[in-house]
Amino acid sequence: MMNGQQYKDSLRKLHPIVYCNGRKIESVVDDPMTAPHVNSAALTYELAFDPEYEDLMTATSHFTGKKINRFTHVHQSTEDLVKKVKMMRMIGQKTGTCFQRCVGFDALNASYITTYKIDKKYGTDYHERLKKYMQYVQETDIMVAGSMTDPKGDRSKKPSQQADPDLFVHVVERREDGIVVRGAKAHQTGMVNSHEMLILPTTNLGPEDKDYAVAAAIPVDAPGVIHIFGRQTNENRRLEGDIDCGNAEYAIVGGETLTVLNDVFVPWDRVFMCGEYDLAQEFVETFASYHRQNYGGCKVGVADVIIGAAASMAEYNGCPKASHIKDKLVEMVHLAESMHCCSIACSAMGHKTEAGSYYVDTLLANTVKLNCTKTMYEISRLAHDIAGGFIATLPYEADYRSEVCHGYIDKYFAGDARFPTEDRIRMARLLENMTGGTALAESMHGAGSPQAMRVMIQRETNWEQKKNFAKRLAKIKTGD
Amino acid sequence: MMNGQQYKDSLRKLHPIVYCNGRKIESVVDDPMTAPHVNSAALTYELAFDPEYEDLMTATSHFTGKKINRFTHVHQSTEDLVKKVKMMRMIGQKTGTCFQRCVGFDALNASYITTYKIDKKYGTDYHERLKKYMQYVQETDIMVAGSMTDPKGDRSKKPSQQADPDLFVHVVERREDGIVVRGAKAHQTGMVNSHEMLILPTTNLGPEDKDYAVAAAIPVDAPGVIHIFGRQTNENRRLEGDIDCGNAEYAIVGGETLTVLNDVFVPWDRVFMCGEYDLAQEFVETFASYHRQNYGGCKVGVADVIIGAAASMAEYNGCPKASHIKDKLVEMVHLAESMHCCSIACSAMGHKTEAGSYYVDTLLANTVKLNCTKTMYEISRLAHDIAGGFIATLPYEADYRSEVCHGYIDKYFAGDARFPTEDRIRMARLLENMTGGTALAESMHGAGSPQAMRVMIQRETNWEQKKNFAKRLAKIKTGD
Amino acid sequence: MMNGQQYKDSLRKLHPIVYCNGRKIESVVDDPMTAPHVNSAALTYELAFDPEYEDLMTATSHFTGKKINRFTHVHQSTEDLVKKVKMMRMIGQKTGTCFQRCVGFDALNASYITTYKIDKKYGTDYHERLKKYMQYVQETDIMVAGSMTDPKGDRSKKPSQQADPDLFVHVVERREDGIVVRGAKAHQTGMVNSHEMLILPTTNLGPEDKDYAVAAAIPVDAPGVIHIFGRQTNENRRLEGDIDCGNAEYAIVGGETLTVLNDVFVPWDRVFMCGEYDLAQEFVETFASYHRQNYGGCKVGVADVIIGAAASMAEYNGCPKASHIKDKLVEMVHLAESMHCCSIACSAMGHKTEAGSYYVDTLLANTVKLNCTKTMYEISRLAHDIAGGFIATLPYEADYRSEVCHGYIDKYFAGDARFPTEDRIRMARLLENMTGGTALAESMHGAGSPQAMRVMIQRETNWEQKKNFAKRLAKIKTGD
Amino acid sequence: MMNGQQYKDSLRKLHPIVYCNGRKIESVVDDPMTAPHVNSAALTYELAFDPEYEDLMTATSHFTGKKINRFTHVHQSTEDLVKKVKMMRMIGQKTGTCFQRCVGFDALNASYITTYKIDKKYGTDYHERLKKYMQYVQETDIMVAGSMTDPKGDRSKKPSQQADPDLFVHVVERREDGIVVRGAKAHQTGMVNSHEMLILPTTNLGPEDKDYAVAAAIPVDAPGVIHIFGRQTNENRRLEGDIDCGNAEYAIVGGETLTVLNDVFVPWDRVFMCGEYDLAQEFVETFASYHRQNYGGCKVGVADVIIGAAASMAEYNGCPKASHIKDKLVEMVHLAESMHCCSIACSAMGHKTEAGSYYVDTLLANTVKLNCTKTMYEISRLAHDIAGGFIATLPYEADYRSEVCHGYIDKYFAGDARFPTEDRIRMARLLENMTGGTALAESMHGAGSPQAMRVMIQRETNWEQKKNFAKRLAKIKTGD
Repeated sequence: MMNGQQYKDSLRKLHPIVYCNGRKIESVVDDPMTAPHVNSAALTYELAFDPEYEDLMTATSHFTGKKINRFTHVHQSTEDLVKKVKMMRMIGQKTGTCFQRCVGFDALNASYITTYKIDKKYGTDYHERLKKYMQYVQETDIMVAGSMTDPKGDRSKKPSQQADPDLFVHVVERREDGIVVRGAKAHQTGMVNSHEMLILPTTNLGPEDKDYAVAAAIPVDAPGVIHIFGRQTNENRRLEGDIDCGNAEYAIVGGETLTVLNDVFVPWDRVFMCGEYDLAQEFVETFASYHRQNYGGCKVGVADVIIGAAASMAEYNGCPKASHIKDKLVEMVHLAESMHCCSIACSAMGHKTEAGSYYVDTLLANTVKLNCTKTMYEISRLAHDIAGGFIATLPYEADYRSEVCHGYIDKYFAGDARFPTEDRIRMARLLENMTGGTALAESMHGAGSPQAMRVMIQRETNWEQKKNFAKRLAKIKTGD
Repeated sequence: MMNGQQYKDSLRKLHPIVYCNGRKIESVVDDPMTAPHVNSAALTYELAFDPEYEDLMTATSHFTGKKINRFTHVHQSTEDLVKKVKMMRMIGQKTGTCFQRCVGFDALNASYITTYKIDKKYGTDYHERLKKYMQYVQETDIMVAGSMTDPKGDRSKKPSQQADPDLFVHVVERREDGIVVRGAKAHQTGMVNSHEMLILPTTNLGPEDKDYAVAAAIPVDAPGVIHIFGRQTNENRRLEGDIDCGNAEYAIVGGETLTVLNDVFVPWDRVFMCGEYDLAQEFVETFASYHRQNYGGCKVGVADVIIGAAASMAEYNGCPKASHIKDKLVEMVHLAESMHCCSIACSAMGHKTEAGSYYVDTLLANTVKLNCTKTMYEISRLAHDIAGGFIATLPYEADYRSEVCHGYIDKYFAGDARFPTEDRIRMARLLENMTGGTALAESMHGAGSPQAMRVMIQRETNWEQKKNFAKRLAKIKTGD
Repeated sequence: MMNGQQYKDSLRKLHPIVYCNGRKIESVVDDPMTAPHVNSAALTYELAFDPEYEDLMTATSHFTGKKINRFTHVHQSTEDLVKKVKMMRMIGQKTGTCFQRCVGFDALNASYITTYKIDKKYGTDYHERLKKYMQYVQETDIMVAGSMTDPKGDRSKKPSQQADPDLFVHVVERREDGIVVRGAKAHQTGMVNSHEMLILPTTNLGPEDKDYAVAAAIPVDAPGVIHIFGRQTNENRRLEGDIDCGNAEYAIVGGETLTVLNDVFVPWDRVFMCGEYDLAQEFVETFASYHRQNYGGCKVGVADVIIGAAASMAEYNGCPKASHIKDKLVEMVHLAESMHCCSIACSAMGHKTEAGSYYVDTLLANTVKLNCTKTMYEISRLAHDIAGGFIATLPYEADYRSEVCHGYIDKYFAGDARFPTEDRIRMARLLENMTGGTALAESMHGAGSPQAMRVMIQRETNWEQKKNFAKRLAKIKTGD
Repeated sequence: MMNGQQYKDSLRKLHPIVYCNGRKIESVVDDPMTAPHVNSAALTYELAFDPEYEDLMTATSHFTGKKINRFTHVHQSTEDLVKKVKMMRMIGQKTGTCFQRCVGFDALNASYITTYKIDKKYGTDYHERLKKYMQYVQETDIMVAGSMTDPKGDRSKKPSQQADPDLFVHVVERREDGIVVRGAKAHQTGMVNSHEMLILPTTNLGPEDKDYAVAAAIPVDAPGVIHIFGRQTNENRRLEGDIDCGNAEYAIVGGETLTVLNDVFVPWDRVFMCGEYDLAQEFVETFASYHRQNYGGCKVGVADVIIGAAASMAEYNGCPKASHIKDKLVEMVHLAESMHCCSIACSAMGHKTEAGSYYVDTLLANTVKLNCTKTMYEISRLAHDIAGGFIATLPYEADYRSEVCHGYIDKYFAGDARFPTEDRIRMARLLENMTGGTALAESMHGAGSPQAMRVMIQRETNWEQKKNFAKRLAKIKTGD
């Protein structure tokens, strides 16, 4: 296992091409725009060495019996699934943002299940390849970016029907030693500070989309790979100081990229699906269900911070005992814990797969994320209500630090006199950045659109059974 | 263990005094007003003999090692807690209503924990008494009504401050062989078809309320006990036939009573608290938390029936494929499963108590019920939206059965011609009775008011921890 | 104008055939099952003679210049539209339920507009016929049941595609002196205590549905007309006394019927549409928009009663000052007034039609009803939350009046000792009946399904304009 | 009346001291950080000369009979109140953001009513002074910043109890020629591009707070006045280009300041309250009610833009006809129109004041803003749901404009091929900036906290009347 420093050092040895705001980033570890994202991910390494969190952060490899970072583990029990959720909540409480590493974790576990199924149906050997790759991942403790979402173009069309065939990643050449892929992956969380990416198909496919059925592991600095870094709300404030950015050390959300794959070569031992289009949908859903499980972990950790910030603001404002403030804080806790319950339940109700690993209850995993797409907005709304108008019109950090304005701001933005004004401003800035713009929009997405989850719920619900429950009580002769 | 028939036979041997609608009920098993409630409870006996449900419905006594009905079990693991939830959902799907027996189940388990604590603090022997009583309950498989809620009078006053001292049950005499209690218990679910009741205190008490700190087991037909049966929405329709009542066999909700205790004698071996006022609050909350756990079981079973009825109505109306109908049905499933997740999670996250039994996570148990107080209304609203205006203006069963009107009703209330009109009417009546009046109001209450839960969430949340999560990220020097 | 007594006397002269619960109702004024509905409607007559309400309750006929009951008026200004809403709220506050007479009011006003359009397109003389009929209505002050909703059968099929051609009312014979119609009208509010009904088409029609395009006025006791009275929640309680029914004098909801038209003859001077299928949709929507306008009047009046009942219950329970109770009451007021605002706004933003009368803003009229379908559920939920578990398990009126039980109930259902227990029970029963079952389901329907309103909002919104607002700001070259 | 250019020219003649991001702003018209706010306000001048909007944008002075800009008008009828709402919606549709000028408009109208009352009670001559001042405002068409909100410090304390006496503006000296005031005003919308400010008290006051009861007009560049400009979400993006800022011409929200008043002198003819503490609360509420009226105008205009952007995004994404997309868009319209209805209704139900001007219905004005504090969040949530993950991870404008990345971004962020990728990015950026961070938080505040509105609803509701509605129906003898 690597610790945080070793992780950072290992990233320095890679040379991905990353563009950001019109320039090239030379070192993702050291560049101020990417460093906070590196810091978040580094915590997933560092905490594995903290005795307090050993049980959550590490696991025993079922391949080798060795102690490994849980983020590289194949779930061996429902207890493992529950620990994943608790681990994520705990890290979320420390970072107040995305720590990115779950995406690869889920992609690997989804591949573990799906490659087994492909092999069973087609006699291929993807599962063995994957097992070898995973042992390599466990051994080296590298960070793998789970890489699913294609740009998609016109949403009403299949990959092969798009005006531009590259709007979904596809195989453009099959060679003796491997394949060549072309296209791009969008919204790639944690990509620039990962070592490799594991690309997966992103939608259900028909026979005409055969070339789009591709899963493979690719180094982030492989020839032909180009990353364009996404922009976040207020992201440039981190260049100015440590107040206005709100969360100076860990930034906001996951540092997403558009990652372009310009005819990238992948050797066969890193290819885990190639052409088996009829299992693409299953690949997508297995990944998505594992990923939806997470939100009642990480997002609840984030919510814990927002709730704490709102409770602190109430204190600074001098009104922590007002009954309507207490009611709102309780409502926030209630909403957060309800999300958490869904993740715990989809884990505790998980089951063993044919491949031997453990998988979540998919119906319940969908409830997690559907709640999240509403709950995080509601929690943000309540936080704004508690924090007061203050949060929308705070002055600049530069003015707060300037000789001429500091005194005025310090004097007039005081709250309860027992607390320094700077604390009140810092807390408001944290809240501002955690409850607006990108942070909110991101709550909506990730792991598929809400509508995708509704479709899945519709498919997975046993409607006939529910109708029969009703027909029996209504005394309708059903014949069954 | 008794089966359903044995349970009914055993009730016939008791002679409780029960008033209902101005008359006395001679046999709760045979009287049409109480029989449907007996039927629901009987299912908790009958299903214990069904091999399909053996794992959920039965357990192994930790006292005797014998197989017992789960409703008499002391939880020995988080698995037991999860099975309780699943058992309740399953029975709810079959009855579409309350089957009552969980109240005593929870009262016994709460007593198991609390008597242990009282003894530890005061050197009393309540826990041993309770263990003997529980072995008797397990052996005889009797149904015990959990009996907590006092009438309460003026909600702003403590028991000893009330204008009438009897508005909370209290000890009026301490004798060598036992105690004499006076007062009443309100909203007593399943009381008339139980064998005994287990009374518990209902609120936190001060030294001046000492006499109100009483827990004891009392036969439902003990001298001095009088039951006045509560009224439900449309309850008299069951006297007319089997259509308009909606759920002919199992009625709606739990058949509650006002149970008056007119100086009732209780021997000491059935007394489990007497004067230890400072543990009253703990008694209440232990019971309430176990009871809040249930709602993501039984209510979700009920919701499964409502969802099935709504899905059936859409089919009868000819519009099962309309996208807005599908969206609403999916939303209903989503809401129901979210409630279920909370119950599963508070069970899976349970822990072992000092007394050796297992107890739920109380913070999460509160989220169950708080969700329920909103969700069941929302599910009902969606069901009405799907079912159409039809449900509000259906004609009488008597007209449907009359020579002159039957033809008109059958002709004009037809939907999709492939289904009999009677089926459509039956389903609408089931839905009407499950989603209105008493059924809805009952979703709000039981296991304490929503406000009580909010207070408990406020108390159980670690606010300092949450504030510290935020302070660290906001770079506020906290000294810790 | 008739007063309340004259209205009742006039009804006694009619002889409609009405079936209810397996028997024939001889006098709707005197039968206990229909009398409360007559009482509600009678108030629309009686209050017209109350000087306090003269401005709201009466208007000046634009035909004759005479003072008339507003319920027979053709709206002459937006002020008239606003007064309609205020009048309805005021009567709703007095009845706590539907007073039925708005349906005919809206049907007449919708006919006034639509007949003008038919004549303009087809050179017919329906508008003149209608004007004569309306002068007759104003002169005699009769109550006209607006009669739109057909049974509809399979919702996915047009009238002419139904398995049974009678599932929508249609013309079966065209004679020299008039037409013969067959079919039924469902959910007919106020029908049995009206003098005549004004039937309208219920859906958009194609050329093949020509015979279904029919509007006509028919006496409620015309040969061939049969009424089957619908059942309401707990409606039989009114036979027992005046407590358990909750609202003894005015019942709950509108006393709906299934009204069968068995080859009923209508003379030409009472026919206002016959075959002009392409204007059916317009007829429906004009009626529906007028009718949706009402809900922010009558339903808000009803909500005022529910809020008052909840506030009273809080007082009886001893907790009127608890901050969470006050918050809930305020939320109820907020929700009710928001509905009211929508009705006022759709009235104030109304406009003059080609026919010279005033019509509501239809987009805003839809918001009224869509809010209502959610708000009344939310208000009911909050009322249950405030009232407490009490409401779900109250004993029977017969027991409360019995010698043996009265004392117990009076003693144990006492709240704050300053108020009689009977008052507390009466208020809880009022609340029970206003917030459950039929009362709630009826909030969902009437004036078309929520989905119908969404469709109308979609059609009436100027999407291109909204997109252009955005395109201009986003600096997108639009060419316009 | 000034037009837009004249307005800008007039601002150039003023010399307010404005600090922003560590530097001094020399010209608010020309500085890129303030110019977009000037542009928004300039539209309130420019549109007054557009014949299409003459009826909404101008009015006839009741002082002089001259045509004036409506923003300087004293409302003379409910029609004036309705036109104010419609004018604001219209301008909001054009700017997509706050145009600031309503604050002074409301402050002037509130002063018109309140000075009349002060004079009546105390025999002062504030009303005459104000009338003269208003004629000056109408004549010169200057922009007056309504200046109410004090910093407030510890929210649990009155002004005179604060640790620092300056946390509310107060009179520090009374001279023969005028008064001297000290303190600050926070969240001052439109302040830097106004000509003068009209300060008002911000809370209810007791006798000990007498010096805090002060209302007065002060030039923005009076000696002793210092402005510190507030920071907005992503506000620096406007320095980079015109894509990433979303709304290049008009920015986001109102350009708020902390305005410090360092012993500022005000001559008596500009003082409109000085010491009459018992009317402070009335001043606050009159202003607040006028201001709450606005939100169903301006915010609905803003919502129209958001809805248009979401509808456009759906089109660009290739899914404008998906039924779940249509449902969400309809829901957005429904929510926006409901807010609008509340503003229209509180205007149409306005009444004449003793001073002769027209005032809104205050209960209904509160419903406007309370809806807004929820609705804008819900509309934003739905917009994010429709727009897709895209919005959270878009690349930088600099990369889009760079040679190396432009092609990739243009290729891979294409949607429906009929639309340019740049349009899709522009629309997403507009949506991002209108639905996050400051924009959302600002929906919560302005015109007082939501809790302040709830308190006002509680006070203004006639609870006894509502209880009596219920008591009569429940047959409770009330004695009245």
